[in-house]
Amino acid sequence: MGINVRVLFILLLLTMGLIFYIGACTSGIIVFVFTVCIISFLMSVYLTKWVLAKDEGPPEMISDAIRDGAEGFFRTQYGTISKMAILLAMVILCIYLFRSTTPEQEASGVGRSVTAFITVVSFLLGALCSGAAGYVGMWVSVRANVRVSSAARRSAREALQIAVRAGGFSAMVVVGMAVIGIAILYATFYVWLGVDTPVPLLLVGYGFGASFVALFAQLGGGIFTKAADVGADLVGKVERGIPEDDPRNPAVIADLVGDNVGDCAARGADLFESIAAEIISAMILGGTMSKRCKLEVLADPSGFILFPLVVHSFDLVISSIGVLSIRGTRNASVKSPMEDPMAILQKGYSITIVLAVLTFGASTRWMLYTEQAPSAWFNFALCGLVGIMTAYAFVWITKYYTDYKYEPVRSLALASSTGHGTNIIAGVSLGLESTALPVLVISVAIVSAFWLGQTSGLVDESGNPIGGLFGTAVATMGMLSTAGYVLTMDMFGPIADNAGGIVEMSQQPESVREITDLLDAVGNTTKATTKGFAIGSAALASFLLFSAYMDEVSTFSQEALTQVDIAIPEVFVGGLLGSMLIFLFSAWACSAVGRTAQEVVNEVRRQFIERPGIMEYKEKPDYGRCVAIVASASLREMIKPGALAIISPMVVGVVFRILGYYTGQPLLGAKVVAAMLMFATVSGILMALFLNTAGGAWDNAKKYIETGVLGGKGSECHKAAVTGDTVGDPFKDTAGPSLHVLIKMLATITLVMAPIFL
Amino acid sequence: MGINVRVLFILLLLTMGLIFYIGACTSGIIVFVFTVCIISFLMSVYLTKWVLAKDEGPPEMISDAIRDGAEGFFRTQYGTISKMAILLAMVILCIYLFRSTTPEQEASGVGRSVTAFITVVSFLLGALCSGAAGYVGMWVSVRANVRVSSAARRSAREALQIAVRAGGFSAMVVVGMAVIGIAILYATFYVWLGVDTPVPLLLVGYGFGASFVALFAQLGGGIFTKAADVGADLVGKVERGIPEDDPRNPAVIADLVGDNVGDCAARGADLFESIAAEIISAMILGGTMSKRCKLEVLADPSGFILFPLVVHSFDLVISSIGVLSIRGTRNASVKSPMEDPMAILQKGYSITIVLAVLTFGASTRWMLYTEQAPSAWFNFALCGLVGIMTAYAFVWITKYYTDYKYEPVRSLALASSTGHGTNIIAGVSLGLESTALPVLVISVAIVSAFWLGQTSGLVDESGNPIGGLFGTAVATMGMLSTAGYVLTMDMFGPIADNAGGIVEMSQQPESVREITDLLDAVGNTTKATTKGFAIGSAALASFLLFSAYMDEVSTFSQEALTQVDIAIPEVFVGGLLGSMLIFLFSAWACSAVGRTAQEVVNEVRRQFIERPGIMEYKEKPDYGRCVAIVASASLREMIKPGALAIISPMVVGVVFRILGYYTGQPLLGAKVVAAMLMFATVSGILMALFLNTAGGAWDNAKKYIETGVLGGKGSECHKAAVTGDTVGDPFKDTAGPSLHVLIKMLATITLVMAPIFL
Repeated sequence: MGINVRVLFILLLLTMGLIFYIGACTSGIIVFVFTVCIISFLMSVYLTKWVLAKDEGPPEMISDAIRDGAEGFFRTQYGTISKMAILLAMVILCIYLFRSTTPEQEASGVGRSVTAFITVVSFLLGALCSGAAGYVGMWVSVRANVRVSSAARRSAREALQIAVRAGGFSAMVVVGMAVIGIAILYATFYVWLGVDTPVPLLLVGYGFGASFVALFAQLGGGIFTKAADVGADLVGKVERGIPEDDPRNPAVIADLVGDNVGDCAARGADLFESIAAEIISAMILGGTMSKRCKLEVLADPSGFILFPLVVHSFDLVISSIGVLSIRGTRNASVKSPMEDPMAILQKGYSITIVLAVLTFGASTRWMLYTEQAPSAWFNFALCGLVGIMTAYAFVWITKYYTDYKYEPVRSLALASSTGHGTNIIAGVSLGLESTALPVLVISVAIVSAFWLGQTSGLVDESGNPIGGLFGTAVATMGMLSTAGYVLTMDMFGPIADNAGGIVEMSQQPESVREITDLLDAVGNTTKATTKGFAIGSAALASFLLFSAYMDEVSTFSQEALTQVDIAIPEVFVGGLLGSMLIFLFSAWACSAVGRTAQEVVNEVRRQFIERPGIMEYKEKPDYGRCVAIVASASLREMIKPGALAIISPMVVGVVFRILGYYTGQPLLGAKVVAAMLMFATVSGILMALFLNTAGGAWDNAKKYIETGVLGGKGSECHKAAVTGDTVGDPFKDTAGPSLHVLIKMLATITLVMAPIFL
Repeated sequence: MGINVRVLFILLLLTMGLIFYIGACTSGIIVFVFTVCIISFLMSVYLTKWVLAKDEGPPEMISDAIRDGAEGFFRTQYGTISKMAILLAMVILCIYLFRSTTPEQEASGVGRSVTAFITVVSFLLGALCSGAAGYVGMWVSVRANVRVSSAARRSAREALQIAVRAGGFSAMVVVGMAVIGIAILYATFYVWLGVDTPVPLLLVGYGFGASFVALFAQLGGGIFTKAADVGADLVGKVERGIPEDDPRNPAVIADLVGDNVGDCAARGADLFESIAAEIISAMILGGTMSKRCKLEVLADPSGFILFPLVVHSFDLVISSIGVLSIRGTRNASVKSPMEDPMAILQKGYSITIVLAVLTFGASTRWMLYTEQAPSAWFNFALCGLVGIMTAYAFVWITKYYTDYKYEPVRSLALASSTGHGTNIIAGVSLGLESTALPVLVISVAIVSAFWLGQTSGLVDESGNPIGGLFGTAVATMGMLSTAGYVLTMDMFGPIADNAGGIVEMSQQPESVREITDLLDAVGNTTKATTKGFAIGSAALASFLLFSAYMDEVSTFSQEALTQVDIAIPEVFVGGLLGSMLIFLFSAWACSAVGRTAQEVVNEVRRQFIERPGIMEYKEKPDYGRCVAIVASASLREMIKPGALAIISPMVVGVVFRILGYYTGQPLLGAKVVAAMLMFATVSGILMALFLNTAGGAWDNAKKYIETGVLGGKGSECHKAAVTGDTVGDPFKDTAGPSLHVLIKMLATITLVMAPIFL
């Protein structure tokens, strides 16, 4: 531990030295961003120290097996991912070494080999940072879990506080790393190559690297966690009738390991990627726009480019305040009635949102004021407000459809009373229906933010308004302006879940279990709402990256690609293939969980038969074998859907490029890929909403019945609800979140791979 | 009965008189089409007479309750639908009376009020024909069912033959009515208004009327049949352990009525609509194309316009031959080993396909030969071949994914052995995965047919090739060139299903039941493959109607709408909303079944409790109440999804038209609706494939287990498979087929309602 902190310190000091050199050469804003990031890293060090200072509880609370399992899987998984990343890096290098350069590039003095080198380096840097973000999330979670369990013996509030601060640590690191990584890349290009507007490709390499790693991390982790969960439940709960997380279940450690590698590590990588993609696309748009409306004549255009970095610097500050606002002192005794932890977290969220509105307004005034369009900053502030409201609406809608306080989950529970079949029909209907409101919200957000931007007063040379897309970008930033706090709430879930597991395994008294159960239930809701948030921002970010793609194609092909016309048969076919990709990817992700769960079921059944003493606590089950089985199966199973996602846009692009060549249609490959991307995005958003909400609703319908209604635990109704929950598991924790990443990965891969379609 | 036949004869004679008058005034081809249609009507009269001459079996075989239930529901349902159709007709009238006319229209001398009047009349005619198609399907099915049951006592082959000929009757009527209806409309316009190219709107009114009725017929019928089925199974099979279709089950008559109103009536309307939409879009395209390449200078352009009518006239002939090729004489004794009925049906299909290839080739040479492009006909013949091959591939793929001879259904059955949860996960994955191959096939078909058309040698004034879209249209015709036989196979299913029910209810010996069970199983497969066929042709037809929509908008707005650019935020939002429409519609269709099934469950439970004598055959259950409950519930539940489908494109169009007006974007409403249509089509195809295949696979996985594998009937594995089957019911028989109709209805409603978006 001591070494880890010291290493972190040395790294920080080194970074600081480099930073203030290049920061000073670039812009005052960059220095500001660097400073905030460094402060927030220090803040996160403080949070870790605070968490690690807590006691690890009595010796029977053992988290070593979980930690070793998680770190072992992480090493193997990221070993595989690194190999694939290096292979892909070489492919990218080859593509860029043989592509033709644009006149623009030649004019800027950045040659072909330099571009190739930089693209590859930024790809690898993005992959590295994404991996680090995942590692950090898991690192703290496997250490905080046992401390939360221990604290739950004393006070619910203290347990809550530890889980939140541990989550806050990784949130700060993830957001901070996204911001500082891009800031460093930008500053380096500025100083080294003298380019003052961001070169899209160089930054997008970073985004692609991040999403590449996030995709495999989410797939592997998601398959791991849900296969172990489903397998453990099917034999333990259903066949043997022992409670969840019972130490007699041979798959229990695999399940708890899964929470860490699936939820913590993967979600860290996912949100890192969201923020990175959003910052990058907004910077590119800001750069393009300020160039087109000749802002440099009147003022410093860097405000528009660096704006997203500033917004996320403030995000770090306000999220820290939100996290710290959750205090553990009010009722230090376990006897006093427990407050609703959800209300406490919500209060912190409200504080963060209010601060976000204020700082966002201030940032727009500071960064986006130009004499050319004096009221533009106010329009953009309103765009930010649209984004913040969208985030809030998404969180609310997800809560409405997945919380058992509301009608939908209650009627789902009621449908369970007539059997497994009606439970599934009702759950599928609920999930499909739940796509409607988010789509309406996102539609209103896109159109209104675009029009606020368009009417901001920013015009190009010929007087046409051009602020629209940037308006959408600002709305995305508004949406993500509380990302730090949202990620904290998300990370809280698996930590609480794990703590509950450790409490159950060490057979603590009922009162302690009640506390961790309560925290776990809250964690389920926050996890679901974060997914709503993630998919909303993915939708907006993809729309932005899509326009970056069109610009990129236009630049390199020397032919304007401003339209993607779906009335052309080939383009329509591209759309069909894009939507199909989403369906096929979801199918493979779900069936991977099913198949792996099957292996777990067989292994657990075998252990129960071969070691009859397990059920009487006389023999210890072989936890390690289950972990090993799930680990190797999920590594194997993540390849097929992941490869599909990466290879299919490239194949489609190349095939239609060749077809276009022979049928005399220039840019056909690029257009077909564009349609593929758009249709995949739309279908992906809807499919992810469906999968996430249906899964969350099934889970909570089961929890609602477990509170005693409709027959309670053990009734026929409960059994039907457990079926729904099992079906929901791969939906909400494997296929759903993988689709978030897939959408953004598609947006970046088409950009990076554009040369092969042209 | 006597009266019905006489009425039919008088109608036929009247039609003939009118026909030969206007036919002679129009074109020799029209006379040919009319003649073939009349012959095929005579043929269908022969088939009915043949079927009705068969005996109705012993008195315990009662089909009166089924017939009365089906006809009662049909009357109420079509009463409701007619009211809505008349309301909509008035809306259309108002819209067209107040729209502006185009210069083209003024030149042709067709005024505003004439257009309005004709559009409304063709809408009502389409609605009427669609309703009649549905009625005919149901009329013969409720009469053939008991005759098939009776014949099953004697010979399997005779039973098969009756079911096939009854199905053939309705198929001939449905296809013939679609062809003759459009031919009459075209000839009337030609004679009355002197227009030689089809006026898109006038024909599309017919298509819209047809799809409007088909949508509500499919929704209402689909909800009826599956709610009764699920409700009957949940109490009868699962709770009480009595066999399917047992006379003690109070919901059994409702279930058997459902087969007729859901499968026969609705599918008749659905395929009528498919053929109508395809003929219309192809005629419009042919007209536009021959005008643009100035064919009239060299030759008679009517070949290109009337081609689809000729193709479907041949369809009537070859399908009749296919139907008649199935003979009932080979083994007249029930003792001799039963042949596989699927093989017999397949043989008939093979004969039909071979004839289709020959007649299609001949038709292209006859109709599409022009001196301007002497080899064009051959390219178009190849397009037709592409279509026929696509149909064949669709049928094969559906069989692969839903027949238990193949791997997918077998592993689904295996997944049932670990519980309800894994069965559902595996089924959902299977359904999602099964979308991939059909999409690839349809993609190849669209692109290759388009390029065959484009390279046909037909060029416009400036020498650009313009045959592409017509090539796609010809491929669609090729796909539908065996529609008569396919519809026969489809209609066969519910008749066999009903016959099995009557055999079970009248407690016939085991050997008779075996024969009807076998026919029922074959019916399941043919039903599934027909759905694949229907969705494939819907995909192609929608793509054609989409281009008609673009032409229409361009004509009326006097501004070329040749592109739908999804890079525009509003257009992208339109796409989002289109895909969302599909998800929401599916959700509402599924949940309608769930809710109605709930009511059935409660009623059946109540009857079993209040009349304990039912289980001992001492009391008769109140069948009528269940029928009444399902009928009123399905009438109520069909409104919400149906209204959504009709109102949402209009609302979106009007909202964005207004938004476009205020933001200075001309044609915004039309463009957004276009994107909505395209995204809805793509998502609808995928969703329908998913729902149909998953449902079919679940059904057959259950049947596979019932053959004795994995524990057989009554095992835990079988119970899990029954859950899957219950879930699959609303998927494959309510939401899935409703989506086919929805896709085409969207394509026609946008065309008819285009004036309000402009």
